[in-house]
Amino acid sequence: MAGRYWEDFEVGEVIDSPEAYEITRERLLDFATEFDPQPMHTDEAAAVAGPFGELVASGWQTLAVTMRLLVGSPLFESGQVVGVGLDQIRWLKPVRPGDVLRARGEILSMRPSGSRPNQGFLVARITTLTDGTAVAAYDVTMMVPRREA
Amino acid sequence: MAGRYWEDFEVGEVIDSPEAYEITRERLLDFATEFDPQPMHTDEAAAVAGPFGELVASGWQTLAVTMRLLVGSPLFESGQVVGVGLDQIRWLKPVRPGDVLRARGEILSMRPSGSRPNQGFLVARITTLTDGTAVAAYDVTMMVPRREA
Repeated sequence: MAGRYWEDFEVGEVIDSPEAYEITRERLLDFATEFDPQPMHTDEAAAVAGPFGELVASGWQTLAVTMRLLVGSPLFESGQVVGVGLDQIRWLKPVRPGDVLRARGEILSMRPSGSRPNQGFLVARITTLTDGTAVAAYDVTMMVPRREA
Repeated sequence: MAGRYWEDFEVGEVIDSPEAYEITRERLLDFATEFDPQPMHTDEAAAVAGPFGELVASGWQTLAVTMRLLVGSPLFESGQVVGVGLDQIRWLKPVRPGDVLRARGEILSMRPSGSRPNQGFLVARITTLTDGTAVAAYDVTMMVPRREA
């Protein structure tokens, strides 16, 4: 059994995504056209008159990219992690074309599953960063496989 | 001023997205390859041995599609809605290739903005449905423009 399992984590541990992801203008526009077609996300000129005064990425793109970065991190190394729920999603700063995102997870708590002896729960605070500044954050509860006894 | 503004909503109101969106196999695989590259979302054969026993959509795709459906609904008719935060995201049922998603919003509470007299806050319970069954849900706080006084 390769990879990191429930027992291999500990409360307080901080895990940084080894990869980064650039929100290029093309990626920003492509995502927004499909999933969040509001002028502040799809139309450079109209965005100037919008709530941010400039073109910004859909908050859902920030979160989807965060998932990609986490999947490539030790948090998902078991290959069988299931997201159970999320709380307290906050978009803290606008993400602009050219911003490079990284993801960080801090383990907040751990408990074994009562009903599934081969699984455990992790609660992690996830933060999405650009140049060290948090742009989004949420708490996630994940079900992670345990090592076979 | 066309569209629906803060004053035009009321607590308890239920708004259904006029559009629907099919999670075709191609869309499912494309999204997962870019944003959630885990075998349960990207590899039909490997997914059989995964936690759901079959290929399922990334939960982030369900949420991104929900955003698209909401943007096309009266909730976003003002064209200037800003999502402030989300709570209690729950993925209730797996979404499979061929599932057709619709979105529903129920207004839970409303309050004027203390600092921005031309804006108000709406809290809505968002539910994503397939054939009338909820597959995901969350509560969102949105800042919505008010009609000019």
